[in-house]
Amino acid sequence: MQFGHFDDMRKEYVIDTPATPLPWINYLGNEDFFGLISNTMGGYCFYRDAKLQRLLRYRYHSVPADEGGRFYYIREKGKSAWNPGFLPTRTPLDSYQCRHGLGYTVFDSEKDGLRAELTCFVPLGETCELHDLKLINQGGEAKTLQVYGCVEWCLWNAVSDGENFQRNLNIAESEVEPGVIYHKTEYRERRDHYAYYGVNVPAQGFDTDRNSFLGHMGTWADPQMVREGTSGGSLRVGWYPIACHRLDVTLEPGQSWRCTFVLGYGQNPRERKFIAPGVIRKDAAHRVMKKFASGEAVEAAKQALAAYWGKLLGKFQLQSGDEKLDRMVNIWHQYQCMVTFNMSRSASYYESGVGRGMGFRDSCQDLYGFMHIIPDRARERIIDIASIQFSDGSTYHQYQPLTKRGNNDIGGGFNDDPLWLVGAVCAYIKETGDFSILDHPTPFDNKPGSEAPLLEHIRRSVQFTMTHLGPHKLPLIGRADWNDCLNLNCFSAEPGESFQTFGPSEGPVAESVFIAGMFVKYGGEYAALCR
Amino acid sequence: MQFGHFDDMRKEYVIDTPATPLPWINYLGNEDFFGLISNTMGGYCFYRDAKLQRLLRYRYHSVPADEGGRFYYIREKGKSAWNPGFLPTRTPLDSYQCRHGLGYTVFDSEKDGLRAELTCFVPLGETCELHDLKLINQGGEAKTLQVYGCVEWCLWNAVSDGENFQRNLNIAESEVEPGVIYHKTEYRERRDHYAYYGVNVPAQGFDTDRNSFLGHMGTWADPQMVREGTSGGSLRVGWYPIACHRLDVTLEPGQSWRCTFVLGYGQNPRERKFIAPGVIRKDAAHRVMKKFASGEAVEAAKQALAAYWGKLLGKFQLQSGDEKLDRMVNIWHQYQCMVTFNMSRSASYYESGVGRGMGFRDSCQDLYGFMHIIPDRARERIIDIASIQFSDGSTYHQYQPLTKRGNNDIGGGFNDDPLWLVGAVCAYIKETGDFSILDHPTPFDNKPGSEAPLLEHIRRSVQFTMTHLGPHKLPLIGRADWNDCLNLNCFSAEPGESFQTFGPSEGPVAESVFIAGMFVKYGGEYAALCR
Repeated sequence: MQFGHFDDMRKEYVIDTPATPLPWINYLGNEDFFGLISNTMGGYCFYRDAKLQRLLRYRYHSVPADEGGRFYYIREKGKSAWNPGFLPTRTPLDSYQCRHGLGYTVFDSEKDGLRAELTCFVPLGETCELHDLKLINQGGEAKTLQVYGCVEWCLWNAVSDGENFQRNLNIAESEVEPGVIYHKTEYRERRDHYAYYGVNVPAQGFDTDRNSFLGHMGTWADPQMVREGTSGGSLRVGWYPIACHRLDVTLEPGQSWRCTFVLGYGQNPRERKFIAPGVIRKDAAHRVMKKFASGEAVEAAKQALAAYWGKLLGKFQLQSGDEKLDRMVNIWHQYQCMVTFNMSRSASYYESGVGRGMGFRDSCQDLYGFMHIIPDRARERIIDIASIQFSDGSTYHQYQPLTKRGNNDIGGGFNDDPLWLVGAVCAYIKETGDFSILDHPTPFDNKPGSEAPLLEHIRRSVQFTMTHLGPHKLPLIGRADWNDCLNLNCFSAEPGESFQTFGPSEGPVAESVFIAGMFVKYGGEYAALCR
Repeated sequence: MQFGHFDDMRKEYVIDTPATPLPWINYLGNEDFFGLISNTMGGYCFYRDAKLQRLLRYRYHSVPADEGGRFYYIREKGKSAWNPGFLPTRTPLDSYQCRHGLGYTVFDSEKDGLRAELTCFVPLGETCELHDLKLINQGGEAKTLQVYGCVEWCLWNAVSDGENFQRNLNIAESEVEPGVIYHKTEYRERRDHYAYYGVNVPAQGFDTDRNSFLGHMGTWADPQMVREGTSGGSLRVGWYPIACHRLDVTLEPGQSWRCTFVLGYGQNPRERKFIAPGVIRKDAAHRVMKKFASGEAVEAAKQALAAYWGKLLGKFQLQSGDEKLDRMVNIWHQYQCMVTFNMSRSASYYESGVGRGMGFRDSCQDLYGFMHIIPDRARERIIDIASIQFSDGSTYHQYQPLTKRGNNDIGGGFNDDPLWLVGAVCAYIKETGDFSILDHPTPFDNKPGSEAPLLEHIRRSVQFTMTHLGPHKLPLIGRADWNDCLNLNCFSAEPGESFQTFGPSEGPVAESVFIAGMFVKYGGEYAALCR
């Protein structure tokens, strides 16, 4: 399926219509702060963990589809409000373009002679998204506009946010400063972190209460405040907290205008978290707002991001003479691998970011894609993965990125897992020549005191496979091997039983030809490594 | 807040506007099948367990609010489609009335000379909702209409339905017979139950694929098929399954018309679940569709339900001379208590039905409200509750209604719980004189072989309190006592820790004056009972 084209000069994928059959998404962020953003401005962002520290509320499988994310409205008096990303307003645009680049996304659209260009990215070294908006009046008359920027807060834990209403309808808290709205839910009792949404030009109005902004039975497509061109100044505690700024703008013909919204995460030393009773310390937010106070600073952050990606991808470049192959190998494949490193498939538009954490098997496989780009971080990832292995060589099937501990909900018993670690370590050494990783003291099940050299971990992986054989002397499959979408050796019949961990129903004798094949390959690599 | 009035003759609460500040809900069902229904037709239904066996997808905190449930559309060519419950179409109505009665809800509205009356209830003895629709052409000209009835299926487990998209976008399965659509997701592999949505008059079209029905980027407010007056006949496997019927109706002036939609749950003996490869046995659905094939049969089921409630509430009637007091005591208070018996606060518009199951403390307290109405079921409930108690007299804080087993996620440690059982048992005996309950063999933690007379359970409750005292010889609070919204003796500081079970942070010495007060009251009752 193709809904746009590649712009090779800019290294961007250009989408020419908002009406893609499915949202077409990009990933923002490289270190601790990440965002998912679709070609219609849907998605969400989080700090380190998509389940536990989610900033924006996003409803997977919502109707209308892909609702939630960055809500922007441009309103000219007497006309329907519109959004350069088309949603949520659905107002037809005179032109629309979404460009997904390396770590940023641009919405570049036009309506009634007004052009809007909105660029979203996570600046290097900061825990925030920037939404940089430029307007140009390309018409022949002056325009009186109102610009609304709005986000809806998730109450941090994305699961309880959608389940525990007895609690979460009572806990929301905000603070408002000129141009910056703070989401400090749970801060008083349990937390030393907050989120904020600010804008670097003077704002003329705000709202923090969703129902005030949308109006009774309101929709994101047509908020009451936008329809009326006003703001409620709502300061609601509890219920559904949002952060919304209104900017009044007048543009002469040919005149342009720019502002940058900052959507960020801040945290404080626990012992200094308040500056007055109930008033949170905002140093982190103030520093970031000041840093991006000017368009020049925002522009510099964009350039730095481009340089970062240029350097990362520059380590490995192919000139094959085939334009498409070069593009795939040099840009998009490496970019995908870096995103996979960052997210490890835990958050996307299929993975809701709340369930699985990072897979042992997946993460071992993913290493192959980025160890040449970021060998140091690949090494750290290998140690993280090996640290959830049990002392008998088997392993948790998943771990949480925030805690780096094995996920008890799913446990172990996926018997191909141990051998993937052997493959990953061998591949890492082949790529880097760094044999010293084999000596790295690495715990079992993250237990302090259980550390053993990494070589011992992969020895136990091999041992586990060799000592868990079935009636035909092939490796036992446990709950499943790699083909766990096809062959799950579990069979739950009652509601409430996990389809993935209940059983094994066929008894403890099912064997895996796939694991046997892995053993031939990775057992051989292990033997070669030992030699 | 008042948004309507009581109709004492009919024993109904009449809501005169769809624009209530919050959805105004009723509860349908008395035995195994339950529905929540709002004054704008939102809500969902389930068989026995709101988490594990949910039929309809409902998005708590959705925008627009209260979306999901029973989607009906009445379309007259050239005009906007409307719904007698106002949502999801939001088409302004000439008149609107919602009437919540005892176990049923009626929507009675008018638009352009067409009157629609839709009555929703769960018939006694069956596991289904009936949606009984009557239309009357009150205008002077013939009307050519299309009626759509539509529901969106939840993939049974309401939690994974909203989280695990890698799985649940691949598993949906439907079957279609003339006038009946079957939701058989997971049936092939793991289940012997299905849901169905049928209509008792010939249908002219259907859809089972949500996106086909709504159209690209479509909304429930304005589905493409309704807008175009057609049906897609979509038979999609996977993604988002719905069941939608289209009925073409022509009404002369003064003419009336009636049909009944049946939304039901069926199950089969496991060994006879298929009638042909991949084709499910539908005996249960066929029997119910046949039973309600005529308007007379539906009318009889309504009468039976009214008689059931009349008998239940007739056991206790007050004639105080104060109309409002009588109404509260004779109708609404008893009705609420019966709903509480059925749901035990596990599913409502605040409790999402997925989290907590039934509370030990709550269920003990709730007993006071219905033991005079349904003493046999109250007795059974007491035994169920006592069966999750641990052998040391402490107890799980919650249990799942489907399995009746203690909920491990929350565990125990709410130290007021044990004494509530003492209070409930004493109150039951005072009301019924049934001392034999004290001899009932009742297990601890549902372990077969651990049965002891119920009297021994309440003895251990008292003992637990007496042997868990703090420095001032007052009962230890554990994690919390009854005031657990105010005084939770837990304190989590890290994301991912439960606010309810992490700790106790103040050490194991915190005492509860509240539990001490309970001990004075229920310890005394226990002593009197022993004498």
